Amino acid sequence: MSAITGLKLAAVAAGIKKNGNKDLVLIEAVAGSTMAATFTQNKFCAAPVHVAREHLQSIDKNAASYLLINAGNANAGTGEPGMQAARQSCDAVAAVSAGSAHNVLPFSTGVIGELLPVEKIQAALPQLQQALTEDAWGDAAAGIMTTDTVPKLASRCVELFGRRYTLTGISKGAGMIKPNMATMLAYMACDVTVEKHLLQEVLSDAVRRSFNRITIDGDTSTNDACVLIATGSEKEAISSKSQAEFSVFHEAVCALALELAQLIIKDGEGATKFVHVDVLNGACEADCEKVAYAVAESPLVKTALFASDPNWGRILAAAGRSGAEHLDVEKLTLHINELPVSTNGGIAADYVEADVAEAMQGRDIRVRLDLNMGEAAFDVWTADLSHDYVSINADYRS
Amino acid sequence: MSAITGLKLAAVAAGIKKNGNKDLVLIEAVAGSTMAATFTQNKFCAAPVHVAREHLQSIDKNAASYLLINAGNANAGTGEPGMQAARQSCDAVAAVSAGSAHNVLPFSTGVIGELLPVEKIQAALPQLQQALTEDAWGDAAAGIMTTDTVPKLASRCVELFGRRYTLTGISKGAGMIKPNMATMLAYMACDVTVEKHLLQEVLSDAVRRSFNRITIDGDTSTNDACVLIATGSEKEAISSKSQAEFSVFHEAVCALALELAQLIIKDGEGATKFVHVDVLNGACEADCEKVAYAVAESPLVKTALFASDPNWGRILAAAGRSGAEHLDVEKLTLHINELPVSTNGGIAADYVEADVAEAMQGRDIRVRLDLNMGEAAFDVWTADLSHDYVSINADYRS
Repeated sequence: MSAITGLKLAAVAAGIKKNGNKDLVLIEAVAGSTMAATFTQNKFCAAPVHVAREHLQSIDKNAASYLLINAGNANAGTGEPGMQAARQSCDAVAAVSAGSAHNVLPFSTGVIGELLPVEKIQAALPQLQQALTEDAWGDAAAGIMTTDTVPKLASRCVELFGRRYTLTGISKGAGMIKPNMATMLAYMACDVTVEKHLLQEVLSDAVRRSFNRITIDGDTSTNDACVLIATGSEKEAISSKSQAEFSVFHEAVCALALELAQLIIKDGEGATKFVHVDVLNGACEADCEKVAYAVAESPLVKTALFASDPNWGRILAAAGRSGAEHLDVEKLTLHINELPVSTNGGIAADYVEADVAEAMQGRDIRVRLDLNMGEAAFDVWTADLSHDYVSINADYRS
Repeated sequence: MSAITGLKLAAVAAGIKKNGNKDLVLIEAVAGSTMAATFTQNKFCAAPVHVAREHLQSIDKNAASYLLINAGNANAGTGEPGMQAARQSCDAVAAVSAGSAHNVLPFSTGVIGELLPVEKIQAALPQLQQALTEDAWGDAAAGIMTTDTVPKLASRCVELFGRRYTLTGISKGAGMIKPNMATMLAYMACDVTVEKHLLQEVLSDAVRRSFNRITIDGDTSTNDACVLIATGSEKEAISSKSQAEFSVFHEAVCALALELAQLIIKDGEGATKFVHVDVLNGACEADCEKVAYAVAESPLVKTALFASDPNWGRILAAAGRSGAEHLDVEKLTLHINELPVSTNGGIAADYVEADVAEAMQGRDIRVRLDLNMGEAAFDVWTADLSHDYVSINADYRS
């Protein structure tokens, strides 16, 4: 994983996760860095989300800034004691770094409704601060995992101002996944210099095109957050949307965000399939979005995907109930993995069930719905619904 | 099951279901009967729904009318050949009953996307017509089953005009259940005399308060339909909303519809729980409805219910993402089976997890959310999400 100059990380096992794995991560961005973030739109949002939103507004750019992330406890549904615990965590970071608590953004993920063991965080922080290094992206990705089975990291180079910069990110999440104008936890950083309002604009658009297009179970988390940090403080800065560098950086962040979002789906709870639902040629984007999510979240479609069963009637039934305004089932065309399945509301003339069933045995499935009503499009990535999804979520707290 | 004077039924095994069970039902309403119906709002609706809607408009009240219902094949996603098959079925009923095809409403339920074997229906109809009797409600309830494990029947007496009338109904459905301004298949009849527009008004309201408040998997079927028949043709008729008899009849139909709707949930695919989600004191009914469905359809809530796990954070998280406009999590109170669980967005002071977990071991679970924002309310009935739901729907076609 490619390190980012000016960004240090560390992870330790503070005893918050019951399994003894690493569960506390500290990220330090060098003084001069700019930071952008998006947060969950769930009205029932966690204490650290409130505090992080507040601190983001008042960060002192001339000092180092910190992200403190714990897994194993969401600090959500914890009322005023939860808010105090989030603030005490920030105070503890300020104490070991000789900085201000306002330069610390707290994040939590895990079980909802249990008080955050803030004393464990306080006890672990000196060691955590000592361990900060630019090479700990892998440790940090592992430290933020909950029901994830693999750490999620991605990196790429970006050519800007005639030299190479590095863009690296991590994410976590496997269930309670339908980010809404936000995301599960994800952290990305680049060693370029970017003005804050442009950094936020790039992040918001990247999130809209990546994390906001994935769904595992349609459940939006209380703790979703995504952060983008630019650690550079050079004269050669991205300071205008008309710069060629803005577009290059924008596209690079979008591509990284999409890769991190897709890693979440591939590690979806119980997932055996990675499904791309691609809705084309709708009258408007809203119609395409409704159809895409209705198909991607239908339990009947998801169990058929789990069975590698080309039960296309369920896909058309989901589209039909999606609420899309301009939808004529007689005009609709359905392909699965590029094979023709349904046209004009009935079976495609050249449909061969055995061929489609065989194509669906693989992990990657593309469901392509052509609405034939206009030129809009929307795509969503999702997973299937398996026995393991039920097991994981029926047993999660035990 | 209490028979209805003027209404005869019969069911046979026509060879449409692969398991050889009864799969074809004929219902005959005596000349003079009035009929009301509601149908699926899914834009991808089945051929028989189109034909039944059309025929309902032109029924000749002075002749006998017929409902022909097959299970095992939905005749949906079958294009023009499917429309022809639905019309040919009506023609076949007209032939054996020496009546008009316009007095026949066809209904189908089962697998989507396979052509209806109309020749099997034609072959079985003479025998079916011969078998018509007022006492075959049980056979009819069995004949319309698909993944249902039990036939669903209910009956009650209604006192009208100083005498006793009988109100009886059947329903089917266990998956693809989120009726929308309609229902899964349900048929109700009463031997009273009711004017057609009042019968439709009673049915529409009863459906709104019963079948439209149940959800198993959030998937609206392509074939939902509900029919209410009044077989009487006496001078003492329900002909005005101001009659006391209108209110009594209205309430009786609502109660019967609710009982039939709840039977569908109790037999939900893989269901081990019967869950009443009751949202109270919202600012408006739309908010309460959004919260109720978000909770009732959340895969995370449903798997926790399956595990008898009072994982209340998932319930609040679902409420928080429901899209309800006037929602303040700080004001929300949650009870499970009348036990206090959460207040003010946190754990209730008198919450005892072991007590709630024990109460959830039973089959009946009531989730009560008090929004404390106004006086509106909405309730929904649902089932849990179990391993058997996945098995049933991954294996349905094999």
